[in-house]
Amino acid sequence: MRKTFHVAIVGATGAVGLEIIRVLERRRFPISKLSLLASSRSLGRSLQFENQNITVQELNQEAFSGVDFAFFSANGGISRQYADIAVQAGAIVIDNSSAFRADPAVPLVVPEINSADVQKHHGIIANPNCTAAITLMGLYPLHCAFGVRRIFASSYQAVSGSGAQAIQELAQQVRSIGKGEEAEKRIYPRQIAFNVIPHVDSFLDSGYTKEEMKMQDEGRRIMHLPHFRASLTCVRVPVYRAHSVAVSAEFEKPVSLDIARSVLSKAPGIRLLDDVALYPVPLDVEGKDTCEVGRLRLDCALDNGLAFWVCGDQLLKGAALNAVQIAELLI
Amino acid sequence: MRKTFHVAIVGATGAVGLEIIRVLERRRFPISKLSLLASSRSLGRSLQFENQNITVQELNQEAFSGVDFAFFSANGGISRQYADIAVQAGAIVIDNSSAFRADPAVPLVVPEINSADVQKHHGIIANPNCTAAITLMGLYPLHCAFGVRRIFASSYQAVSGSGAQAIQELAQQVRSIGKGEEAEKRIYPRQIAFNVIPHVDSFLDSGYTKEEMKMQDEGRRIMHLPHFRASLTCVRVPVYRAHSVAVSAEFEKPVSLDIARSVLSKAPGIRLLDDVALYPVPLDVEGKDTCEVGRLRLDCALDNGLAFWVCGDQLLKGAALNAVQIAELLI
Repeated sequence: MRKTFHVAIVGATGAVGLEIIRVLERRRFPISKLSLLASSRSLGRSLQFENQNITVQELNQEAFSGVDFAFFSANGGISRQYADIAVQAGAIVIDNSSAFRADPAVPLVVPEINSADVQKHHGIIANPNCTAAITLMGLYPLHCAFGVRRIFASSYQAVSGSGAQAIQELAQQVRSIGKGEEAEKRIYPRQIAFNVIPHVDSFLDSGYTKEEMKMQDEGRRIMHLPHFRASLTCVRVPVYRAHSVAVSAEFEKPVSLDIARSVLSKAPGIRLLDDVALYPVPLDVEGKDTCEVGRLRLDCALDNGLAFWVCGDQLLKGAALNAVQIAELLI
Repeated sequence: MRKTFHVAIVGATGAVGLEIIRVLERRRFPISKLSLLASSRSLGRSLQFENQNITVQELNQEAFSGVDFAFFSANGGISRQYADIAVQAGAIVIDNSSAFRADPAVPLVVPEINSADVQKHHGIIANPNCTAAITLMGLYPLHCAFGVRRIFASSYQAVSGSGAQAIQELAQQVRSIGKGEEAEKRIYPRQIAFNVIPHVDSFLDSGYTKEEMKMQDEGRRIMHLPHFRASLTCVRVPVYRAHSVAVSAEFEKPVSLDIARSVLSKAPGIRLLDDVALYPVPLDVEGKDTCEVGRLRLDCALDNGLAFWVCGDQLLKGAALNAVQIAELLI
């Protein structure tokens, strides 16, 4: 008989939590019991999983009894508060927040890139930042072929990255503007409808945002490349749920478009969509597990360089899918 | 008595043409007569200029008789067909299309950067590409301080850059989606509402689009820098009328943030908006003559590098304003 597991989702009613439920279902993760945990605000709600209604329970110190895998998708504070408790109760924690991503004792894993790292865990495994994960999906096969040195990139990040309330905010602002009313701002510091905002996460003293430095910090850990450099501008755009990233990448070795196309077309989790006037757009990757890469060209401002464009569903490869893939590596 | 001029606008009913009328009015350009020229589709329409109604006339070979300045804002085909005719009739042509931008006999001018070039004209002066003009407004003061070598940039381009019909297309798509209907596509190959499209202008064999190479080609001419390199990804975003560009720039000399802020704060046509959580967004620069620069930081992937973010009204500094400024240099 196939072994089954008791799985818990912390932050089950959030945008990522709901997606984890769908991914577990769709990939037929072997579940004996599913515990949906959330703050007291969501108590009493019930969510569907495999045609059963599961009532949301309160996240507390006792919630992890008997749990094998705990997916954390609330926020960094909740992860720091409860991850160790879950581990002590015997669970393996897969954490979607940034709380442990820089911790050398916690593997940071994109299964298509560094699946072996998952075995080094001491109870917690970190799921990478969404923009970093999606960019690395396109970059890593090219790195294997040519050896990446550094990238310059700009993101076009969907509002789903800020959670369910941000999705509502974009929809509400568009409705208000359509009626000639003022657009109300709650989640974003500026109007996001018909605008773009070069501000994701908080600012560091360097002038970069935390989000922008995740690409370099997490890219170094995931690709095992301590000297990898990445300069990003992270920008929120009025798109609902898929991120896009424009990348100029410099490599050690001379690059060839044929080899680049060949490695990308064989790379797991990637769909190459690269022909004249054929390229990925975020609307088309919504709900898809694969990241799509296109706009491949020899970079005209680099000697060994490639420019490319990558789109990925922020809630799937950028969050829920990658987290479930990590759990699958362990069963 | 102040000299006054007979001014013609070719493509007067288009998004840029309408804006040229407003800019001429606002800057009190010394006009004795204004001829509004358009295709037969717009005949009979009348437009307001300084409280007068001016009837749109047909663009034809006789339309330039007595004209001193002819602003062309239709398309490259119209410019190639009529610019010489206007010059032969005695007009100075200021052309907003890409028809003559690469012609060494035609100065390509951003008045804040290379105003002296305007004197070398033989009847035609080219107005630069909107994204190039806005980016160079931010880059040129930094170049004067540190000597630019190359840039890596990504654009967030408003729909106004594709004309009045594209503005309507975005609004119509948003309305349709709000009603649960299909979004109709006429101007853009993909839905632009709630999406971004990495495709502006047509594709070259290199894989870059024409729009993307304008930055390098036009930057070289405007800054008199034949070895300037620029790798761009140009992306259309669901914003109505201001463009934004994220730039990583490499310089010859070591860079300092203090000097960068100092030169930008003194640069003509620029507003520096650069503090923690204080940065430009395209919605805020709509209708403004100045381009706004922010998100200044030492580039973490370059040794002598600066990253920055620049926003500018596509119809103003990106088109109409710059064209009228060129005419002002000549009077």
